[in-house]
Amino acid sequence: MKLAVIGTGNIGSRLARLFALANHEVFIGSRDPKKAEAIAISLGKVAKGVTYAEATSNADVIVLATPWANDATLATIRGLGDLTGKIVVDCTNPLAPDYMSNTLGHTTSSAEEIAKQLPGAKVVKAFNTIFADVMEPGKQTFGDYQGTGFYCGDDLKAKEVVATLIQDAGFEPVDAGVLQNARYLEPMAQLNIQIAYGLGGGTDVAFRYMRRRVA
Amino acid sequence: MKLAVIGTGNIGSRLARLFALANHEVFIGSRDPKKAEAIAISLGKVAKGVTYAEATSNADVIVLATPWANDATLATIRGLGDLTGKIVVDCTNPLAPDYMSNTLGHTTSSAEEIAKQLPGAKVVKAFNTIFADVMEPGKQTFGDYQGTGFYCGDDLKAKEVVATLIQDAGFEPVDAGVLQNARYLEPMAQLNIQIAYGLGGGTDVAFRYMRRRVA
Repeated sequence: MKLAVIGTGNIGSRLARLFALANHEVFIGSRDPKKAEAIAISLGKVAKGVTYAEATSNADVIVLATPWANDATLATIRGLGDLTGKIVVDCTNPLAPDYMSNTLGHTTSSAEEIAKQLPGAKVVKAFNTIFADVMEPGKQTFGDYQGTGFYCGDDLKAKEVVATLIQDAGFEPVDAGVLQNARYLEPMAQLNIQIAYGLGGGTDVAFRYMRRRVA
Repeated sequence: MKLAVIGTGNIGSRLARLFALANHEVFIGSRDPKKAEAIAISLGKVAKGVTYAEATSNADVIVLATPWANDATLATIRGLGDLTGKIVVDCTNPLAPDYMSNTLGHTTSSAEEIAKQLPGAKVVKAFNTIFADVMEPGKQTFGDYQGTGFYCGDDLKAKEVVATLIQDAGFEPVDAGVLQNARYLEPMAQLNIQIAYGLGGGTDVAFRYMRRRVA
């Protein structure tokens, strides 16, 4: 697949690497294409560092890995060009500037706010409950179990594509239903932050949705 | 310990059984003490079915397993008598009458609303992210891993007591911080409902908070 990863932070750079290792063609989009290109070079021939507009025009799937605070994500998507028909993977969380609370939720979510701004795109929430530190080759699995990658969205075909990307990144995809259910996935990310940072548990952790294995 | 379980529904009856099996003395409180006594008889000598007031006056720890909708929980606690100094384990979720959404969240939680009504009690949120169907002897563990019992609260000693109860019930206690973090645990329960009921995944599932095991 041709993927655009928008954002060169902890999440964006690590997802770009995992996707590149799975042999996807990755266009890393940044306000600062030189920074994106430096990351791309470390990933080999399948990755390129480009502007936001070049990344999205080259790709079928746009992975949003941008901060939420100070309107950063919404401002960024306004500058991405026409995303009609494209799959937008929303990895964001509506975190306050200090990360220690969510600035929206319960009756909406960052995923729903993004979808409102991109009526022609197929928005799928994913990767938002996983810490960057476990988005590393070999770190996605704990004992016998992969970390779970919950995803939700309203377009079934787009969700299938995203489930494949979650698998390619080394996680166990679990369908969490319609996009509105991002209202429940985003608080889960904040719970993770509270335990890891608030209580000092650290970020080398992951949620697993365990189902009974019938013998 | 002397425990009061308030509520004879799916959660209350199963928690009462798990606590009785761990040799706690369990007072099952109900508006209908005959119903509570029928459950108690099936649990053996450690359990008694009584009125709400008898249950709470006999116990040090009050386990609230009541529905949220139609003000059921808040109305019930107003009738429980004086809970000053007692530990109140809040197992509720602020579910709409059809269970398929949360009626509050993000800036508050059912735990915080309960705590406001019980200023003298030590409220700890627990058990709310676990389905009744896995609160059964032998079903708390999936493969090698117990389901996680997240808990949060503002009184450290009360939290230690509740962590022990979670362990006694067969789950892995994970400290989720202050009571305010119930805002993140309650949406997680709704996520579980969406996957189990909304998407038909079923209730024989549990969340696990996986930490790296250092060899």
